[in-house]
Amino acid sequence: MTQSSPTAAVLVIGDEVLSGRTQDTNTNTIARFLSALGIDLLEARVVGDEIDRIVAALSELRATHDYVFTTGGIGPTHDDVTADGVAQAFGVALPEHPEALAILGRRYGDEFNAARRRMARIPEGGSLIANPVTDAPGFQIENVFVMAGVPKIMRAMLEDVAPRLRTGAVVRSRTLRVVGVGEGAIADLLAAAARADRDLSFGSYPFGHGTVGEIGTQLVVRGREEAAVDAAASRLQSDLAAAGIEATPV
Amino acid sequence: MTQSSPTAAVLVIGDEVLSGRTQDTNTNTIARFLSALGIDLLEARVVGDEIDRIVAALSELRATHDYVFTTGGIGPTHDDVTADGVAQAFGVALPEHPEALAILGRRYGDEFNAARRRMARIPEGGSLIANPVTDAPGFQIENVFVMAGVPKIMRAMLEDVAPRLRTGAVVRSRTLRVVGVGEGAIADLLAAAARADRDLSFGSYPFGHGTVGEIGTQLVVRGREEAAVDAAASRLQSDLAAAGIEATPV
Repeated sequence: MTQSSPTAAVLVIGDEVLSGRTQDTNTNTIARFLSALGIDLLEARVVGDEIDRIVAALSELRATHDYVFTTGGIGPTHDDVTADGVAQAFGVALPEHPEALAILGRRYGDEFNAARRRMARIPEGGSLIANPVTDAPGFQIENVFVMAGVPKIMRAMLEDVAPRLRTGAVVRSRTLRVVGVGEGAIADLLAAAARADRDLSFGSYPFGHGTVGEIGTQLVVRGREEAAVDAAASRLQSDLAAAGIEATPV
Repeated sequence: MTQSSPTAAVLVIGDEVLSGRTQDTNTNTIARFLSALGIDLLEARVVGDEIDRIVAALSELRATHDYVFTTGGIGPTHDDVTADGVAQAFGVALPEHPEALAILGRRYGDEFNAARRRMARIPEGGSLIANPVTDAPGFQIENVFVMAGVPKIMRAMLEDVAPRLRTGAVVRSRTLRVVGVGEGAIADLLAAAARADRDLSFGSYPFGHGTVGEIGTQLVVRGREEAAVDAAASRLQSDLAAAGIEATPV
């Protein structure tokens, strides 16, 4: 790995997430999408439908990450202010984009009213992101990708975004499952493994607490060199066995 | 509303959320919890298990919100560094807390090892948050509440947190459901309603896109004066009816 992996942040925009009305799933979808491309997601944020908050968050995140992915706030209603916020963050105008106008005009025909025209406003310098579900496009401006909040549409837009991204070495992981033993009983062995392999990360995720089923821990070894990950997972499994703890690869 | 409502931020801490391995649900749980108490959740963030990132995010969020709620990273393993980050953000030591030591000692007895003792480390000046599920406590320091990442435990901890919070006027909402009509067809009426009632918020949430079922929009009127919310929702329903659009209260 001579070249470092690209970094990314997610910015979810929507009052409905902060009020608890809606459970955000877009962050998880984007996280998995980026994992598969070897891009490191370093932070995710949720802000409401307020231009000032969008501008502040976006300005910070785009300056400190290779890519920023936003979701939400690009529909036709008055509370959809993401494009306004993005334009302001970049200090550019927000004119109607000819291609977006054409796409929306074709979709809505006689019903292409002023509200729907709002969805054709794209920050100057932006390029469209295709929306095969409901046509209204997202857009890319520099390192920022602006997508819809509806999960089905957001997922479709990611397919148009993928080819535009620089990818990195994919992070590989191996998971060991330990049943009937809590995290505290294996923490020392896990910490020793982490000290021995500083290029890898070793995570511990307890399961079953407070439920009727069995209690245990998933141990996850992660890294960009598959052989190193495999070797470390095997060593950890042996070390646990030597301590009388059975760990099963998942 | 002479006194303004308290504000809050959520800080989710965990590599597993950013890698996509885990779908965060704690933010939604906290959002609903705060809604019921009349506390405005203004932002949520996710960062990984890195002390520097925890310190940076927490320092910013606690300076700009009345309350900050963190989840994750308080277990016994080496990757649980939330307490370290919180102590550093407040510039205080991280000694073993006598009461936490006693609680954990009772739980683990002969198996109370060094890894498990890590969970007794509480930033100086912090008070414990009870964990009725697995005993290992969370803690409060000033305006920051540090809770477990396991959802079942986190929910239990919120019950101990609730009485410590200043509450506000609860936001009331009324929802109208419009079927077979897209957002774009009602956006003008909705915007007019929003202009007429600037103390209320009017949201529009499309549903059914890309699925087999019916397409439509949920219109949500929100505000802290129940009578005003009811009146605005009724007016919006009448205005829609006058335009030939049926809206049904949900």
